[in-house]
Amino acid sequence: MPGTVAKPGSRLERRRAQTRGALIEAAQRLLAAGRSTVSVLEITQHADVGMGSFYNHFESKEELFAAAVDAAMERHGDLLDALTTGVEDPAEMFARSFRLTGRMQRRYPELTRVLLSRGAAMIVSDRGLAPRALRDITAGKAAGRFTVRDPQLALVAAGGALLGLSQLLESDPGRDGGRDADILAEDLLRMLGVPADEARESCARPLPDLAGLGEDIPPAIA
Amino acid sequence: MPGTVAKPGSRLERRRAQTRGALIEAAQRLLAAGRSTVSVLEITQHADVGMGSFYNHFESKEELFAAAVDAAMERHGDLLDALTTGVEDPAEMFARSFRLTGRMQRRYPELTRVLLSRGAAMIVSDRGLAPRALRDITAGKAAGRFTVRDPQLALVAAGGALLGLSQLLESDPGRDGGRDADILAEDLLRMLGVPADEARESCARPLPDLAGLGEDIPPAIA
Repeated sequence: MPGTVAKPGSRLERRRAQTRGALIEAAQRLLAAGRSTVSVLEITQHADVGMGSFYNHFESKEELFAAAVDAAMERHGDLLDALTTGVEDPAEMFARSFRLTGRMQRRYPELTRVLLSRGAAMIVSDRGLAPRALRDITAGKAAGRFTVRDPQLALVAAGGALLGLSQLLESDPGRDGGRDADILAEDLLRMLGVPADEARESCARPLPDLAGLGEDIPPAIA
Repeated sequence: MPGTVAKPGSRLERRRAQTRGALIEAAQRLLAAGRSTVSVLEITQHADVGMGSFYNHFESKEELFAAAVDAAMERHGDLLDALTTGVEDPAEMFARSFRLTGRMQRRYPELTRVLLSRGAAMIVSDRGLAPRALRDITAGKAAGRFTVRDPQLALVAAGGALLGLSQLLESDPGRDGGRDADILAEDLLRMLGVPADEARESCARPLPDLAGLGEDIPPAIA
C-alpha cells in the first residue's frame, strides 16, 4: 500500500514493522550465506512476504542490505555497551570492548560474515561500532590516557584490525580467537600510547562471563 | 579451444595470454566502477573477446575477479619493493612502505577501489602486499626492532589499518592522504614496539619522489 500512512501503534503499522523485520532477517541470512547477488524476488520469497511489499520499505536491494548490516551492528554495539558497563579507565574500556568483539567471530560466525561482506565501509559508518569506538578513543585522549594525534585515524586502525582479525579467524578455523583478540588488543593499546607493561596487564584481566550473558543475547542471525 | 595445449611461445599461446589479459583488464575496470554484479557475457563484451573464450581461462566470474585483484596487488607490491630499495632498518622499511601505500588512494583511486571491493580478504591473501608486510614484520621482530608477540596479528592490524585508511580517504575527499598515512604509520610503529619519538621522527622523513617515478608506473587501471 504505497503512500498509506499508518497511525502509530495501529495494526497496519505493526504489520509494516513485521514485514520490514522479515525482509531484514532474510537479508541477513542471505548475506551470511554469501548470496549478495540474489534477486529482490528471491529475497521476498525467503522473507515470506509479497514481492510488492519490498518497495514499500526499500528502494533497492542495496538499501535493504545496508539496513540489515546496520541492524546487526547496532545490536552488537548494544551488547558491547552492556558488557563494558562500570568500566572507568578508557584504556580498560577499549581493551575490554576489543577483546570481547574479537571473540564474537567464534561465537557468532554468521554475524561476523555479514560484517565482513560489507567490508571496510563499516569502519567509516556513523552507526554500529565505529561511533562507539571513536567516542572511547576521543575520551581517552581527552583524559591524557591515549597519545594519538588523530582519534579518527586511531579508529581506522582499530576498526581495520578488528576487520582483519575477523577475516583471519574466518579463514583459519584452527586459530584461538580469544588469544588472538587479547594479543591484538594489547598491540592496539600500545598504538594508542599506553605503556607496554600496562597494555600487557590490561589484556590479561578476566573478562565478563560471556557464557552467562549468552542467554540474554538474541540469536545474531536466525 | 578447450583442451588444446599450446606450445610455449607459440602464436596460440600468445593469443591465449592476450585474451586472459583483456579479461583481467575488463574485470579491473568493472570492479573499479563498482559493477561486480555484471554477467560473464558483459565482461566478454567489455574485453572484446568471444563469450566462449571466457571459460578457457576462468571457471567463474568470481575466479576472474580474484585474478584481477591479485594482478593489481602484485603490481602494487612490485612498485613498493622498487620504492623501498636500499632501506636497511625494518622500522624505516615498514614506515616507508606504509606511507607510500597510504598515498596510493589519492594517486590511484581506481586501483584502491578494486582493493576495497575485495574487502578484508586481501589481508589474509598469500599474494600482493600481505606476504611482503609479513616478511618485513617478521624480519623486524628477528632483529629485535619490533616487540610484537605474533607477527601474523601485527600484519592483520597493519593491513586492516591500510584498508581502513583507504576507505576513509575514499569516503572523505577533503582529507590529506599524505598527512593521514604518515600519522597512521607512526601509530603502527608504536604498535610494533618502536619508541614514540623514533616513530615520530621516522615518519617525518622525506619520501622518494613519487612524481619522478610516476612515469615508470603502468597505469593502474586503464
